[in-house]
Amino acid sequence: MYDLIAELYPICRSITGNGVRKTLDIIGKHVPLEIHEVPTGTNVFDWTIPKEWNISDAYIKNSKGEIIVDFKKSNLHILNYSSPVHKKLSLKELQEHIFTLPNQVDVIPYLTTYYKENWGFCMQYNQYKKLPDDEYEVFINSSLKNGSLTYGEFFIKGKTDDEILFTSYVCHPSLCNDNLSGVVLITYLAKLLKNLNLKYSYRFLFIPETIGAITWLSKNVSNLSKIKCGLVATCVGDPGAFTYKKTRNNTSKIDRIVEKVLLDSKVPHKIVNFFPSGSDERQFSSPGFDLHIGSLMRTMYTVFPEYHTSADNLDFVTADSMRESLEQYLKVIFILENDAKYANLVSKCEPQLGKRGLYDAVGGQKKQKIEKMALLWVLNLSDGGNSLLDISIRSGLTFEEIKNAADLLYEKKLLKIID
Amino acid sequence: MYDLIAELYPICRSITGNGVRKTLDIIGKHVPLEIHEVPTGTNVFDWTIPKEWNISDAYIKNSKGEIIVDFKKSNLHILNYSSPVHKKLSLKELQEHIFTLPNQVDVIPYLTTYYKENWGFCMQYNQYKKLPDDEYEVFINSSLKNGSLTYGEFFIKGKTDDEILFTSYVCHPSLCNDNLSGVVLITYLAKLLKNLNLKYSYRFLFIPETIGAITWLSKNVSNLSKIKCGLVATCVGDPGAFTYKKTRNNTSKIDRIVEKVLLDSKVPHKIVNFFPSGSDERQFSSPGFDLHIGSLMRTMYTVFPEYHTSADNLDFVTADSMRESLEQYLKVIFILENDAKYANLVSKCEPQLGKRGLYDAVGGQKKQKIEKMALLWVLNLSDGGNSLLDISIRSGLTFEEIKNAADLLYEKKLLKIID
Amino acid sequence: MYDLIAELYPICRSITGNGVRKTLDIIGKHVPLEIHEVPTGTNVFDWTIPKEWNISDAYIKNSKGEIIVDFKKSNLHILNYSSPVHKKLSLKELQEHIFTLPNQVDVIPYLTTYYKENWGFCMQYNQYKKLPDDEYEVFINSSLKNGSLTYGEFFIKGKTDDEILFTSYVCHPSLCNDNLSGVVLITYLAKLLKNLNLKYSYRFLFIPETIGAITWLSKNVSNLSKIKCGLVATCVGDPGAFTYKKTRNNTSKIDRIVEKVLLDSKVPHKIVNFFPSGSDERQFSSPGFDLHIGSLMRTMYTVFPEYHTSADNLDFVTADSMRESLEQYLKVIFILENDAKYANLVSKCEPQLGKRGLYDAVGGQKKQKIEKMALLWVLNLSDGGNSLLDISIRSGLTFEEIKNAADLLYEKKLLKIID
Repeated sequence: MYDLIAELYPICRSITGNGVRKTLDIIGKHVPLEIHEVPTGTNVFDWTIPKEWNISDAYIKNSKGEIIVDFKKSNLHILNYSSPVHKKLSLKELQEHIFTLPNQVDVIPYLTTYYKENWGFCMQYNQYKKLPDDEYEVFINSSLKNGSLTYGEFFIKGKTDDEILFTSYVCHPSLCNDNLSGVVLITYLAKLLKNLNLKYSYRFLFIPETIGAITWLSKNVSNLSKIKCGLVATCVGDPGAFTYKKTRNNTSKIDRIVEKVLLDSKVPHKIVNFFPSGSDERQFSSPGFDLHIGSLMRTMYTVFPEYHTSADNLDFVTADSMRESLEQYLKVIFILENDAKYANLVSKCEPQLGKRGLYDAVGGQKKQKIEKMALLWVLNLSDGGNSLLDISIRSGLTFEEIKNAADLLYEKKLLKIID
Repeated sequence: MYDLIAELYPICRSITGNGVRKTLDIIGKHVPLEIHEVPTGTNVFDWTIPKEWNISDAYIKNSKGEIIVDFKKSNLHILNYSSPVHKKLSLKELQEHIFTLPNQVDVIPYLTTYYKENWGFCMQYNQYKKLPDDEYEVFINSSLKNGSLTYGEFFIKGKTDDEILFTSYVCHPSLCNDNLSGVVLITYLAKLLKNLNLKYSYRFLFIPETIGAITWLSKNVSNLSKIKCGLVATCVGDPGAFTYKKTRNNTSKIDRIVEKVLLDSKVPHKIVNFFPSGSDERQFSSPGFDLHIGSLMRTMYTVFPEYHTSADNLDFVTADSMRESLEQYLKVIFILENDAKYANLVSKCEPQLGKRGLYDAVGGQKKQKIEKMALLWVLNLSDGGNSLLDISIRSGLTFEEIKNAADLLYEKKLLKIID
Repeated sequence: MYDLIAELYPICRSITGNGVRKTLDIIGKHVPLEIHEVPTGTNVFDWTIPKEWNISDAYIKNSKGEIIVDFKKSNLHILNYSSPVHKKLSLKELQEHIFTLPNQVDVIPYLTTYYKENWGFCMQYNQYKKLPDDEYEVFINSSLKNGSLTYGEFFIKGKTDDEILFTSYVCHPSLCNDNLSGVVLITYLAKLLKNLNLKYSYRFLFIPETIGAITWLSKNVSNLSKIKCGLVATCVGDPGAFTYKKTRNNTSKIDRIVEKVLLDSKVPHKIVNFFPSGSDERQFSSPGFDLHIGSLMRTMYTVFPEYHTSADNLDFVTADSMRESLEQYLKVIFILENDAKYANLVSKCEPQLGKRGLYDAVGGQKKQKIEKMALLWVLNLSDGGNSLLDISIRSGLTFEEIKNAADLLYEKKLLKIID
């Protein structure tokens, strides 16, 4: 996964244009994406697909002709979606188009001007404050033309039409944790799931943030009732503790599942309630849809200092963190796929486990083994009302321990599946 | 407000009599009170209006003819509702009619004998324990005659018949925090509200505690269903932290409002559950009515050592405390008047705030402003189920921030009022 | 109670056999037990009554003929339910039949082999590790023959058919806290209740653990709906803090009662949620029955180091602990018998307590007495929805204080009983 992040890192993405197409091409080598192109001017709910933006070069030169800010060195140097410009101007005039972070003096900020025509450069505050009075040449070789918004989609058909949605945004330029990490994670998730025999159907979206989510939603309104739940994958590559942002109602099944996964995994984590800013859960959770979409991250966007700066680079994300994040996502899918309600077929008193080889021959021992406790919990709570997830949460045992106990009891014909 | 407390302080009030009438006269200069006189002997539920009590003078003289306890110096010296008496007696006989506080040796306690004919004097324990063996003359020039119980009422008609009740008791003699502070606070509240254009109707009661509340309730049974909620104003003049005593069901709308006001105001405060002693919420919350009446105080009655003693005087209450208390009451009214449910008119995805001037032109910034968060919360939760109060509580933003956001969105035609 | 424990202590009990019969004989001197004998081979749900086990002697001798392990010294030395054996064997062969506790080197463990034919000895690890290479003679004079499982039952008929169940297990050999303490406690409870005029019917079970509970349940299926709630009495003789293990649903009335009793008693205690191992609540709470059976203990089984060892002896339990435990059980019964819903007959405002002699003649006092608060709570909450237990929990007053207030108000015709 780290290599795929590295491969995608140099591309200058935005909410439209060839950066997105190139990104989806590379992902397409891992999973066969369906690519959608939605023309400029298309109305999507309250919004309109903007002109397509592309850029090939940009720089600022001083009066000596030296390039002092170079798009080729970092695509963050450009205010994303800048209009083309080529002119000479004074330091004072230039300053109105320069963006810096006075509190983080050594990094280039990432900023955008999607819906208002403007141009600008982003740079380190340390460099900015030393700019001498001079005549500067600014050059942005970009284009804003009718074109389209591009997004990719991948679908795995399961036994049921009920869908689980994994979504990530492909519009950020050279920023690793936010959000090549999320893009690459769901690419690998799709890759791992695509040949499995699954209960649920799984849908993976590779979309520009906000406008891409709105576009996808506007084109899929009639199918949204199939989506049972989902996760926005973002900021999953840094070494920080996990953060789970709950769904809008804070008590969805996916909330209970992710909380249990993090608890069972014994990884440091925190759970935060839903709030209506953030990523595309904002759109999926708007009151007209109210889909059950949470977001499983490591350190949350805006919380890590590298957020939206050139410091969110290949050094900030690690292969280990990506692997561990993927594991949590897989565990979520494991619970989704394996949660079920069973009925205890010997519901009056305990069945005699000993005669089925499930109980110690020597009784009276001072400690119950976890395996035995898991059997007793499954038997006691499999009354039609509790799923394995419910039982694992109530018992404090891991979902896996409870699932293993249920499998064993099912094999011994002490349980039947009811849901 | 402090001046009005000072003006009312010297009057010797009780549950009936001229002290109450004089008090209501003075309040009547601020708001036009409707005065009710309910005759002695009238049955009010399980109770009967007692004889009217008036007093002009009282003292204890020693054998030298020196006045050692003088009603003119403090009306707390008299056991409130004492029958007339004039006789000479020994120290031992006198002691049976003297009340002191052995744990607070320098103050005069406030005590009453409303429903049992008796007479007595209250005095400092320090003076009491030094009384020499002597022949004493006691004189109480009081009267207990058929008359009436007096109370005042003020009503402001709003757009709806639904009423909010503010009540305070006018029966305590020279005690400032308990409860001239409450009396004066609701006087000023009434004064401030009376010329406003209000959604709710507001009713203000100036009643003797217990018997006055019972009397008012018995005469207004058929109108009680209009009362949506209310507050007993008492002990609002001391400099201590706020205390909110919840309504009988502990989860009324008024409970949520007052808690939010105290939280938003960032004032030190504590919330206590309902209990069936205290002030007139006891009667309003009796099971046959169960009105939603809480009580917003500063330090609660019985908790401050000055309670029911001569130390609850003009030094104990402050103008600043009164002003701050009034502010909290006004904020309660602000929420009552402004809480409403809205529906988001662009409920599928977020509306494009940028094109309406409600969003930063430069995107990707690291911190969301509170104003922007308030807009997003209102849009996300205005689904018909949540009022502005609900949204402010869930978001952790102040009610005012949420209300301002709703106003802005309403102006931009992104919301409609539904309730 | 301590003397009865001491009397029962030496008997070698098991899940069947003469040890149980002798135990029930002795208990029968205190309360007239109905004794049941259920033949070997009888099917009870998923189980079958095993062969009856009896034992008269057992030992291990070394090659010098010295008895080194002697059943006569402690019946814990024998693996309970051991088959008869008499042979000579090497140390190595012997070791396969020896059970010890390497972490508690000085005690004999208590272990069983109920459902798998085997034989063995239990001994101190300290002795075990010093056993020399030698030829040993093992002798177990036991029998495993068709017979029966024995249990005892005692029933007190109350005014209603609704039953309260107290159960304890009589299968453990010389172990005091687990569970002669429970057996003796419910014996004395039955003795105290049997001549009282009670609202509920009370049933007391003296059964072998697990198989006895299953047997009793299988023979009483049609009557189980009468059982409203109950407690498993076990581990009530040690000096530790109380432990209450809740019923399967964690919110039964018996749960609320026991928690209130422990709180009112101000005894150190902890409350643990239900879990499906432990004692016979496992069977009573199986999903096919889901009876409301909790367990009120002192230190819980498996938690005290003496558990299932020879250290759970007459020194470990105390007369004081037994008495204090019995008191808690009696308080539980007091609440069960006395909880009721009343309706306040003067529900509009407070009744005038003063004229009924229930209120201080001198008003305005700084502290309300608990008795007065109890009257006010009962009046305020007796609206048909709250029982005395509910009122005591909400008010924080003890059940007894609330009950006394209700009695007083009932006597003054201010309350009527509605349920």
